[in-house]
Amino acid sequence: MNTYTDLEDINDLQALIQEGRNQKKAPLAQKNLGQHKTLAMLFFNSSLRTRLSTQKAARNLGMEVMVINFNQDGWQLEFEDGTVMNADKAEHIKEAAAVISQYADLIGLRAFPSLKDREKDYSEILLKSFAKYATVPVINMESATAHPLQALADAITIEEQKNTPNPKVVLTWAPHPKALPQAVPNSFVKMMKLMGADLTITHPHGYDLAPEIVGNVPVFHNQEEALKGADFVYAKNWSSYQDYGQVLSQDENWMVTMEKLGKAKFMHCLPVRRNVVVEDAVLDSTQSLVIEQANNRTWAAQAVLKELLTK
Amino acid sequence: MNTYTDLEDINDLQALIQEGRNQKKAPLAQKNLGQHKTLAMLFFNSSLRTRLSTQKAARNLGMEVMVINFNQDGWQLEFEDGTVMNADKAEHIKEAAAVISQYADLIGLRAFPSLKDREKDYSEILLKSFAKYATVPVINMESATAHPLQALADAITIEEQKNTPNPKVVLTWAPHPKALPQAVPNSFVKMMKLMGADLTITHPHGYDLAPEIVGNVPVFHNQEEALKGADFVYAKNWSSYQDYGQVLSQDENWMVTMEKLGKAKFMHCLPVRRNVVVEDAVLDSTQSLVIEQANNRTWAAQAVLKELLTK
Amino acid sequence: MNTYTDLEDINDLQALIQEGRNQKKAPLAQKNLGQHKTLAMLFFNSSLRTRLSTQKAARNLGMEVMVINFNQDGWQLEFEDGTVMNADKAEHIKEAAAVISQYADLIGLRAFPSLKDREKDYSEILLKSFAKYATVPVINMESATAHPLQALADAITIEEQKNTPNPKVVLTWAPHPKALPQAVPNSFVKMMKLMGADLTITHPHGYDLAPEIVGNVPVFHNQEEALKGADFVYAKNWSSYQDYGQVLSQDENWMVTMEKLGKAKFMHCLPVRRNVVVEDAVLDSTQSLVIEQANNRTWAAQAVLKELLTK
Repeated sequence: MNTYTDLEDINDLQALIQEGRNQKKAPLAQKNLGQHKTLAMLFFNSSLRTRLSTQKAARNLGMEVMVINFNQDGWQLEFEDGTVMNADKAEHIKEAAAVISQYADLIGLRAFPSLKDREKDYSEILLKSFAKYATVPVINMESATAHPLQALADAITIEEQKNTPNPKVVLTWAPHPKALPQAVPNSFVKMMKLMGADLTITHPHGYDLAPEIVGNVPVFHNQEEALKGADFVYAKNWSSYQDYGQVLSQDENWMVTMEKLGKAKFMHCLPVRRNVVVEDAVLDSTQSLVIEQANNRTWAAQAVLKELLTK
Repeated sequence: MNTYTDLEDINDLQALIQEGRNQKKAPLAQKNLGQHKTLAMLFFNSSLRTRLSTQKAARNLGMEVMVINFNQDGWQLEFEDGTVMNADKAEHIKEAAAVISQYADLIGLRAFPSLKDREKDYSEILLKSFAKYATVPVINMESATAHPLQALADAITIEEQKNTPNPKVVLTWAPHPKALPQAVPNSFVKMMKLMGADLTITHPHGYDLAPEIVGNVPVFHNQEEALKGADFVYAKNWSSYQDYGQVLSQDENWMVTMEKLGKAKFMHCLPVRRNVVVEDAVLDSTQSLVIEQANNRTWAAQAVLKELLTK
Repeated sequence: MNTYTDLEDINDLQALIQEGRNQKKAPLAQKNLGQHKTLAMLFFNSSLRTRLSTQKAARNLGMEVMVINFNQDGWQLEFEDGTVMNADKAEHIKEAAAVISQYADLIGLRAFPSLKDREKDYSEILLKSFAKYATVPVINMESATAHPLQALADAITIEEQKNTPNPKVVLTWAPHPKALPQAVPNSFVKMMKLMGADLTITHPHGYDLAPEIVGNVPVFHNQEEALKGADFVYAKNWSSYQDYGQVLSQDENWMVTMEKLGKAKFMHCLPVRRNVVVEDAVLDSTQSLVIEQANNRTWAAQAVLKELLTK
């Protein structure tokens, strides 16, 4: 692996999942691997789990960490080529990426989508420009349309928790008061396909994910039908891809309940709105894996960092 | 000590004060104690002394430190049970506390009161919820109604500076343009009672602290009378407890002056408004202990961290 | 060197430049020099290069780093003596500087000018007050009127890149949509004079820098004339010193182009507005030194930190 901008960068998924599980068993086994190497973490948006778990992973490998909250500590960047920069953007990505590469051995990036311009969001201009102009590897800490560190943590969690070789996994849309990105469901679907999992997607009409991501995964608009016999239920809200960035439904009937869950394990990337996305009873039950997923964020990040350091 | 949410958590105060003084003499004597352990410092409000002194203390013990400015880097938390989270709170304390516990061995918290709802502030919901749902020890870095790290630094300072076995300590209210919390005076009064100090409180009418905190400490509304024969004068503004959160007086006659101070030592937790709370001459004199108190914040924090690490 | 508030603090410039070049060759050669010493970096304004390069330099020397974004994490400071602090300033510089000195062995400061009150900005009240009341050395990470770490990086860059013993260096004003400080050109001019460089300054009428800084350096209002035979062209916008803080011109004819540059090397401190200050072709050419200048920020900071640590 030369970089970790999306799941396509993974050479050997099973080996990477295994690496994560190994790091979890012995977090400090490679505590000198990253010595005198620096990870610069650039946040263009807020972060709790990613901020802490990635930092923890880097420190476990002996790396230095420098955190930059770009919109607070830095300034706005220009991404277009050839622009006359006489408006509000103070620095071009070409300089920013090259400059940060002078101070860091790895660069982590978080930047959410506008949810206004689908073509622009899906072009992943910030992430791709950074990867292009940086002279060191770039790690996606959640971009406009992908969250591959979360997806890797989810894969580790499913590998740990599954009781059958090929469990049934259901990704269900759930209601939410705000318009959210498609990054998490996109990466989860791609990851399940990469793992060869038995995946089903369910959501109300109008919430189809990008066709190139869904491919031939079965999609149900009847949640009850979709959930039948599930081993893992992954809940997540997302805004519409077709009617881009719009909240088309807040239908409470899509909230995940104990009754719907049955004997399945419950997954969510967090933060989660209680009694909107999922009822208290689910999160407070032993079937909820959400805290373990959060825990596995560290080991997913540590596996990725290790790969990039040993490259 | 399993946690340090308030002074009641202290098992043996004299031992803890002594530990602080020992750390001060040999700051690096236990520099490997916290190796590969992480302190997560969560700030819901601004901080200078606490931020730096606690971080310094943790590093002196070899700990890793991760700082989160929650309202900037994170998001708003829900504390109530059973709420339908369809408004502005993005994450429930149950998840946040459990998740951060995955990445940290100790969690420090700072969150000021609303000063609008006394019952809610004095219920210490954020601090208590974190302590309840976190699976690692929690340290109070100033909560709605208590500042036990400051009180410990104050106790260390008095122990260092006293010339008689049982000096007379006077806590005096002082004017301030803004409504301030009761956290510092609350913890100072409790600490002086724990130490068995000869404490006197003085403030204008309407500024009585919570009765369960004051107990039978003598209270004077005549500042001059109260200050007579004082060895230590601790000045601090606070807003009204009865008329909750209100500024009832800005009477300049309550400002501490050299004339009032006499031969006493002057204490204040900082930040301090010069020529409002206390006149320049006092702060610029050798009788002022405010910088030494700030210095002792490091050793207080280091004593607490050491206790929690060796538990 | 006891402090690094401005270029006058340098004892031996050639030795300091050489130290920077040595650090660049062997960044970790003195990795234990700063062990258990702490650098507190205080930002009253945003920063990217200074934030990362100074932190990197400190870590290369084994120092601990604590970063404070003062206006976000802290509060507003009072600088005047004798003020009755009953308005919006919560803490006096006397306390703040003395307190931070309890937690840090070196203090770095960044604070931009108001660009409204020339006398006040050029009095450097924040920087000088900190240096006065701090009990540890202070490092200027860009103050109201000076940026000596940038100037040292520039000097290292010129020393590395020059092909003749005494190259011709031209500082040219360039257009910009916003009013910018004079800190960078001020320090660059002073540094070139200290180095004994063959310096020429060019800018439109009304943009003269402070006369005590310019001294007898030749000034041209005809950019073409000034640039003739240049080995190094240093472009930078600044607002007017006479008509203080005003943008008197946005004349596009002053933008640096490949045609104007000729065979000279191009320098800029970054961030730079492309196609406003300088055209794309220059920045994307091999004649541009801007990324190397940014790289040299680390070695300049490391040389200064080393001097202050070994003092």
